[in-house]
Amino acid sequence: MSSIKGVFSAAATPVNADLSPDHGALVAHSKQLLADGLHGVALLGSTGEANSFSSAERMAMLEAVVKGGVPADALLPGTGLCALPETIALTRHALSLGVTKVVMLPPFYYKGASDQGLYDAYSHVLDGIADDRLQVILYHIPPISQVPLSHDLIGRLLEKYPRTIAGVKDSGGALDNMVGMTKRFPTLSVLAGADPLLLPLLQQGGAGCITATSNLAGKQLRTVFDKFADPSAAAAVEAAQKRIVALREASNSFPQIPTIKAMVARRYGAASWANTRPPLVRLTDEQIGKLGPILDQVDVDFPG
Amino acid sequence: MSSIKGVFSAAATPVNADLSPDHGALVAHSKQLLADGLHGVALLGSTGEANSFSSAERMAMLEAVVKGGVPADALLPGTGLCALPETIALTRHALSLGVTKVVMLPPFYYKGASDQGLYDAYSHVLDGIADDRLQVILYHIPPISQVPLSHDLIGRLLEKYPRTIAGVKDSGGALDNMVGMTKRFPTLSVLAGADPLLLPLLQQGGAGCITATSNLAGKQLRTVFDKFADPSAAAAVEAAQKRIVALREASNSFPQIPTIKAMVARRYGAASWANTRPPLVRLTDEQIGKLGPILDQVDVDFPG
Repeated sequence: MSSIKGVFSAAATPVNADLSPDHGALVAHSKQLLADGLHGVALLGSTGEANSFSSAERMAMLEAVVKGGVPADALLPGTGLCALPETIALTRHALSLGVTKVVMLPPFYYKGASDQGLYDAYSHVLDGIADDRLQVILYHIPPISQVPLSHDLIGRLLEKYPRTIAGVKDSGGALDNMVGMTKRFPTLSVLAGADPLLLPLLQQGGAGCITATSNLAGKQLRTVFDKFADPSAAAAVEAAQKRIVALREASNSFPQIPTIKAMVARRYGAASWANTRPPLVRLTDEQIGKLGPILDQVDVDFPG
Repeated sequence: MSSIKGVFSAAATPVNADLSPDHGALVAHSKQLLADGLHGVALLGSTGEANSFSSAERMAMLEAVVKGGVPADALLPGTGLCALPETIALTRHALSLGVTKVVMLPPFYYKGASDQGLYDAYSHVLDGIADDRLQVILYHIPPISQVPLSHDLIGRLLEKYPRTIAGVKDSGGALDNMVGMTKRFPTLSVLAGADPLLLPLLQQGGAGCITATSNLAGKQLRTVFDKFADPSAAAAVEAAQKRIVALREASNSFPQIPTIKAMVARRYGAASWANTRPPLVRLTDEQIGKLGPILDQVDVDFPG
């Protein structure tokens, strides 16, 4: 049985006009995501522009969210960096706040890293942290990190750290890869990184998702998660799935993360939410103008 | 006229058995590289596993080298990270030690970054540092960073920061791209990132190189640089170039950076020099055993 199950938000990170993190908006957004029905907030992942923030900024944001009243056990921050001492430091810091679940990228500067090198890297980190409370979700996102995690690597890590390796977030976009992991590693929580794949993955033994449209469609993701196996709820699940897919497609109209942030800006009526840190570029006013009618149509076709 | 000219070492970084940086070996190696005739040491680049070390470790290493007696104006550390506040902090730290030349990666987590996003990133960093002494060598290394720097981007940055943007290190491996920059940007120092391309680049207006075999072939790189235009030295230049190419080819026998480190271990008779930080993997004893005869042959064929 996988220990981490549910629908989790790959939360966007609000920044002020001077590009500093907006702690207040982050706390409020995290609370709203939980109110939407999401099981947890995987803040500071790829959608959250984690690697565009310094370790000090990341620690300060996590502290703000915990001190702001978001339960530590509902948080799954990203803590994987290229420099293993920093991965250890970020993860220890999370643990110091009572946050025991983290999503961990492999070191991602060098491409073509061998399974042995990645095994050595994760081992060095986990041995360095040495905390029985820790639950690690390995992060497979080859389109961005360009450092895939093979099933053999995951198997070796599971064998060495059976209590610590809790899951894999798979943002590779290939359902087969996710299903293959659920079959080979029955104790592993396999979480889809792409919203439309939540439903088919659940139907084949997956544990849930960590996805980006959750910033807007937590309610629908929760409907899919709760009712996918209930024949009497088929219509509700289908309607929720259609809205999720429509939002995902809308978020692909322009560069994805800036579009998600523009959608969140529209949700809250707070234009600053559309800000991004370089190298991501905020959508232009013209792009935001074009996005509005697309989202209006989603609201009409698939009311929430 | 390009302001930074010469042959610079992409120095390897020695680590102890516990993976901590070996400051003493780094200082000694940096001095040896200058004694070999190299014009400077570009420490903490890709060959130097920079991104596998924390910012604190990188700062401590640079301090150790400066305090160890290596002239600050002979150092060109890498300072570019994904998080712009950390790029600013590392660069300011170098400046605080009198080190004014840095090699700067673009933020490299997100792939497919637009020219505008990279322009915004470099602008944010340079405006944040705001120090007239700074000389930046932009770092184009698409095989690893997966974030290429277009000529249009370089042109825009040169226009905005004509005194600060001093050069480009081009590790893309395409001579045409390097020559294209020398022609379009006559004031820019175009430095080859691949040893064999030093000679052809110099012949077409390039400024020099920052390369990996410099850890062993500084003398030969200097010969090529000093004498490439002197017809009476053609034989010496050819012999030096052959040794450089042979070492480069030998370093491609196994994973490149670990092989360079194994070569340096052989040079100094110090086995620990072969250590690497994960995700790079130290050559096995068997691989090192196979590398020896290859290097012996280079020594016989192209004595140094």
